Amino acid sequence: MKKLINNPEEVVSEMLEGFVLAHPKQVKLVPNTSVIVRADSPIQGKVGLVSGGGSGHEPSHGGFVGTGMLDGAVAGEVFTSPTPDQVYEAIKAVDGGKGVLLIIKNYTGDVLNFEMAAELAEADGIKVAKVVVNDDVAVENSTYTTGRRGIAGTVFVHKIAGALAETGASLEEVEAVANKVIQNVRSMGMALTPCTIPAAGKPGFSIGDNEMEIGMGIHGEPGIERGEIKTADEVTSVLLKKVLDDLQPTQDEKVAVMINGLGATPLMELYILNKKVSDLLKERNIDVYETFVGEYMTSLEMAGCSITLLKLDNHLTELLDAKANTVAFKR
Amino acid sequence: MKKLINNPEEVVSEMLEGFVLAHPKQVKLVPNTSVIVRADSPIQGKVGLVSGGGSGHEPSHGGFVGTGMLDGAVAGEVFTSPTPDQVYEAIKAVDGGKGVLLIIKNYTGDVLNFEMAAELAEADGIKVAKVVVNDDVAVENSTYTTGRRGIAGTVFVHKIAGALAETGASLEEVEAVANKVIQNVRSMGMALTPCTIPAAGKPGFSIGDNEMEIGMGIHGEPGIERGEIKTADEVTSVLLKKVLDDLQPTQDEKVAVMINGLGATPLMELYILNKKVSDLLKERNIDVYETFVGEYMTSLEMAGCSITLLKLDNHLTELLDAKANTVAFKR
Repeated sequence: MKKLINNPEEVVSEMLEGFVLAHPKQVKLVPNTSVIVRADSPIQGKVGLVSGGGSGHEPSHGGFVGTGMLDGAVAGEVFTSPTPDQVYEAIKAVDGGKGVLLIIKNYTGDVLNFEMAAELAEADGIKVAKVVVNDDVAVENSTYTTGRRGIAGTVFVHKIAGALAETGASLEEVEAVANKVIQNVRSMGMALTPCTIPAAGKPGFSIGDNEMEIGMGIHGEPGIERGEIKTADEVTSVLLKKVLDDLQPTQDEKVAVMINGLGATPLMELYILNKKVSDLLKERNIDVYETFVGEYMTSLEMAGCSITLLKLDNHLTELLDAKANTVAFKR
Repeated sequence: MKKLINNPEEVVSEMLEGFVLAHPKQVKLVPNTSVIVRADSPIQGKVGLVSGGGSGHEPSHGGFVGTGMLDGAVAGEVFTSPTPDQVYEAIKAVDGGKGVLLIIKNYTGDVLNFEMAAELAEADGIKVAKVVVNDDVAVENSTYTTGRRGIAGTVFVHKIAGALAETGASLEEVEAVANKVIQNVRSMGMALTPCTIPAAGKPGFSIGDNEMEIGMGIHGEPGIERGEIKTADEVTSVLLKKVLDDLQPTQDEKVAVMINGLGATPLMELYILNKKVSDLLKERNIDVYETFVGEYMTSLEMAGCSITLLKLDNHLTELLDAKANTVAFKR
């Protein structure tokens, strides 16, 4: 196993320590937890936003904690849902009296554990709302999921709900805009190589030297087609077609685009994909408002990508544009 | 070769097209060149900053073009110096009448080609100054270099010289502060895996399943020690010791730290390295002013890292803090 680690059992705790040591002005660790919160948490009079999930998807989710995005991020073990008590700690740590929104990616373990945490917090008198992100159009139902999986589109939920929360909006308003993003965001991914969970010590699956898998999930869940490696243009066409078929943007509607790398794919390749994305959207008269290219929701050192489209109206555009200052997303 | 590309011969041109299509408000391509410049170039009355080198190190260098950093970036073929005519095009495109500073990484081809371009531009009456970055303390002289190589520390030169240029400083002043950064910045890297130049189709070197190489260059140039994979803490100790021995910060001096990923190394691992960096610097009473963790100067999909320290005085700190708005570096 070729990894720069110490003890495979300690990768999450060491990562979290290294993270807060790197960015002490922006984030802090809630003592004796795996919860990262804004350095100025809790913020009185602001809805608190909490997300999280298994580790191994960095910069998700701790990298998006900061002004204009998340208040807290809960880190589970690698590719493992955080436990309810950890999520509960996050809710308590960010509650500023105006309630807390949980942004959950649609994996059965995450949904259950975040819901149990919400119940614990509500018993303490904290108002909690939940949204579940299910942007991955590759498959209905999957290894760890009933319904569609949540992947990189989640970052747009963090950004836009976070921007509205920053204006002092109510929990109901922030929940509503998060659901509006979820209704308007679709993604699909593919992988060229597997990745290795440190504690497992070997790749979670195998994939032939000349093979790729279209629609693979961010934990290596099965996709829809395994076959010979296609060109960047062919891959882009397949992913984008499925996203567009589901999202159905009308001509002259505008979208935000995210070309997300899964960990080992060079930026060079992501930009080559973007050239084709841009061409294909232009052919359909779909206006690209802004494009994000980089690593937002990774799968350790997996090679591969996902493509996300978010349909934007004026309100969502304004919130997308709003100031954000987190470790991994600034504007 | 597991890559998301179309034609291996076209990766650089397709990447550059995809890049400017993604970020049209920030950058543009000089027609019929491989030169990226700020969308508002040339800026009258401001010293222009040009850097560049072989492609494959993204986000270097195009990702650092924008307010407060570079005016132009020249992209050579993968791991190949840009030709003098391309550098000359960049100089002409960014000259706003106050001269142009070339920031060159110390590789023989880069130095020669940037110098030839400077002569061409000077013949046109453009004032040109040059600085050569040689932050890599691993080895003296190397495959493509006389003296020390230039690696991730170059990004601090872009940031700080770019900030000073933005204030309207003269070419001599911007050159002087760039040289001051060069005198105060040191780096060292290591690799776990090789990478594949698309046009070559196979890895540039091999490295055993249980092996790593300390001191390897960003094009796979030989390092100083090949052996069994060490722990993250051991790797960090080796790299940081050599950087500190060369840089010799005194107690209570403050530094900026950059933990740079080479392409396939997860952020998780870079943060684990940072925990040890932080501990070791604390032991020596060296104050960390700010820490940057991520991919700044990559080697395609190589797994590995580099660690950079920059000694800061008040002037350098102020310039490091100054606003920057580029695709890959914002503050």
